[in-house]
Amino acid sequence: MNDTIYTYQQLYQFALNVFKSMGCSNEDATLATSVLLSADLRGIDSHGIARLVGYVRLWEVGRINPTPNIHIVHETPSTAVVDGDKGLGLVVAPRAMQIAIDKAKQVGTGWVSVKNSNHFGIAGYHAMMALSQDMIGMAMTNASALVAPTYSAEKLLGTNPIAVAVPAGKEAPFVADFATTTAANGKLEIAQRKNEPIPKGWAQDAAGHATTDAAILKKGGALLPLGSEKEQGSHKGYALGSIVDIFSGVLSGASFGPWAPPFPAYVPMPENMPGEGLGHFLGAMRIDAFRPAADFKNNMDQWLNRFRTAQPIEGQTQVYVAGDIERSMEGARMKNGIPLVAEVVKDLSELATKLSIAF
Amino acid sequence: MNDTIYTYQQLYQFALNVFKSMGCSNEDATLATSVLLSADLRGIDSHGIARLVGYVRLWEVGRINPTPNIHIVHETPSTAVVDGDKGLGLVVAPRAMQIAIDKAKQVGTGWVSVKNSNHFGIAGYHAMMALSQDMIGMAMTNASALVAPTYSAEKLLGTNPIAVAVPAGKEAPFVADFATTTAANGKLEIAQRKNEPIPKGWAQDAAGHATTDAAILKKGGALLPLGSEKEQGSHKGYALGSIVDIFSGVLSGASFGPWAPPFPAYVPMPENMPGEGLGHFLGAMRIDAFRPAADFKNNMDQWLNRFRTAQPIEGQTQVYVAGDIERSMEGARMKNGIPLVAEVVKDLSELATKLSIAF
Repeated sequence: MNDTIYTYQQLYQFALNVFKSMGCSNEDATLATSVLLSADLRGIDSHGIARLVGYVRLWEVGRINPTPNIHIVHETPSTAVVDGDKGLGLVVAPRAMQIAIDKAKQVGTGWVSVKNSNHFGIAGYHAMMALSQDMIGMAMTNASALVAPTYSAEKLLGTNPIAVAVPAGKEAPFVADFATTTAANGKLEIAQRKNEPIPKGWAQDAAGHATTDAAILKKGGALLPLGSEKEQGSHKGYALGSIVDIFSGVLSGASFGPWAPPFPAYVPMPENMPGEGLGHFLGAMRIDAFRPAADFKNNMDQWLNRFRTAQPIEGQTQVYVAGDIERSMEGARMKNGIPLVAEVVKDLSELATKLSIAF
Repeated sequence: MNDTIYTYQQLYQFALNVFKSMGCSNEDATLATSVLLSADLRGIDSHGIARLVGYVRLWEVGRINPTPNIHIVHETPSTAVVDGDKGLGLVVAPRAMQIAIDKAKQVGTGWVSVKNSNHFGIAGYHAMMALSQDMIGMAMTNASALVAPTYSAEKLLGTNPIAVAVPAGKEAPFVADFATTTAANGKLEIAQRKNEPIPKGWAQDAAGHATTDAAILKKGGALLPLGSEKEQGSHKGYALGSIVDIFSGVLSGASFGPWAPPFPAYVPMPENMPGEGLGHFLGAMRIDAFRPAADFKNNMDQWLNRFRTAQPIEGQTQVYVAGDIERSMEGARMKNGIPLVAEVVKDLSELATKLSIAF
């Protein structure tokens, strides 16, 4: 491993300067940096600072507006559609989540579907915004099509993640944040770098056959929905990815399915796009809109404790609750620093030179 | 196959008479019958009339109240907790869904968490109630623990299904309805009856090893979450099952996790149950609380058509959207009748004799 360790503060200052040099306001650059680096802290390296160069490229080709007029297009007491005005998803999504939280304060829950946005970092960040408000938070986004539905040779869905954060009392909260595929694309990229095969069930080739080729996406292959194959329930993962696409894309008026805009700036935009930009869906539910928060937290602590102390299977030492591993990683990386692979360090160094920013 | 074919009307009249002889009002018996038989029509045989004997047994031991006072315990403009008063889940859930729909009419969305209920049939029925209102419908329920979390030797979650129904224009709607496990328990029961092994990835033995033994649940084994194993993403299926349990059980004040009440009346209730009965979670979102319904339906039609006409993989002829297979089954069974296996016919015949009802 040729990793270089950086402190959180080092990467924070660099990313902040990059967003500022794109023309973001101080406030937006700060928000975008916090969202982006939450991925590195939590160990979701594919969605963190490794993507900074990609955001800059989208800005260079005019697909990201650094000074967006993020605004509500339509609303009811518990809902809104937000137009992200081509802003950074890293800024648009937390703003939209704040609207959901504000609505939940008023009428119990708030649900915001977003169009005209871009990649929003890790879904978990936005969902976790609800925790300090004693609310359950939810976040989803669609993404460019890399995933083949069950029985499909065509890629029609993104890895379309779902995050749900649930507050607790004394126990650490429940924070689920997962792609609706068997494996995230980042895992295939890691296997490619190491020249290793991928496990069966992660991807199919162009004809729809099982494959262990980590580079299969470049050869007409596709990621598989959670479940891998029909017999193991891939139609369920396909349904989940569809729900995310419909809630994020169709409900907001963003593009959807195979028309979702690609993240790499060099990939041409799909033809005849049916909507505007990428879509997100954000939700907040006030706990005490259902039952007294103290009662809920007592029961939630009992739930969390029961699962965390469950008897492990042979060969394992611990049963984890969603978010436990990421929380532990966050503590460790804040203390010991964040390792970056050589390719990412090279990308960031080149970016620093181009923008005349210290790295 | 020693199946006997019954018309929908024959089974409907029988189930209606059974619910009436349990003491249900005419209105409740009619509703319960419609919900129960929607499973048989849609080909989800494990949740239909095959369970009628089980509901009667729960009534016999006093766990189902045929004349419940279903009532709102707490509410806000967009939320409610409903106490099912030990009523049939087949009656409690559609009543709670109606409350969600009524709230969505007022403030855009409605979300109802239910305690003190029982098994509610197929989740899809309740979610689909929203379709005729131009709303997206959602339904979930927790259930008695048959599923081991990732790395757990203990069974802590039910098969905890999720249903989401989305209206469309000219195209048939999107209706997802799936257990958050790799395979439903009903599929293991079918394999047991046929004395056949189950595919790898459906279940684990008492030590947590992979197994193809269809009877493994009787030997301390467990169903596996969607994803089967960690490497294939079982922690995601485990997270989904957890979300359903928290929304249905913890948010309402029902029992949850390993304490969810068992369906078979002969299985003793768990000790120290933390809540009341089984829990459900029902949601409705008005389409035009986000964007004009006609615009949404146009885009939804485009979405559905694109997926339904996708290029299939080798060996397949068609890519399906969630709900397509069940809809086709519903049409066929309404016309040609509903096949029942010999064991179910025997159970129903004995029930008919006991209750002095014609079958």
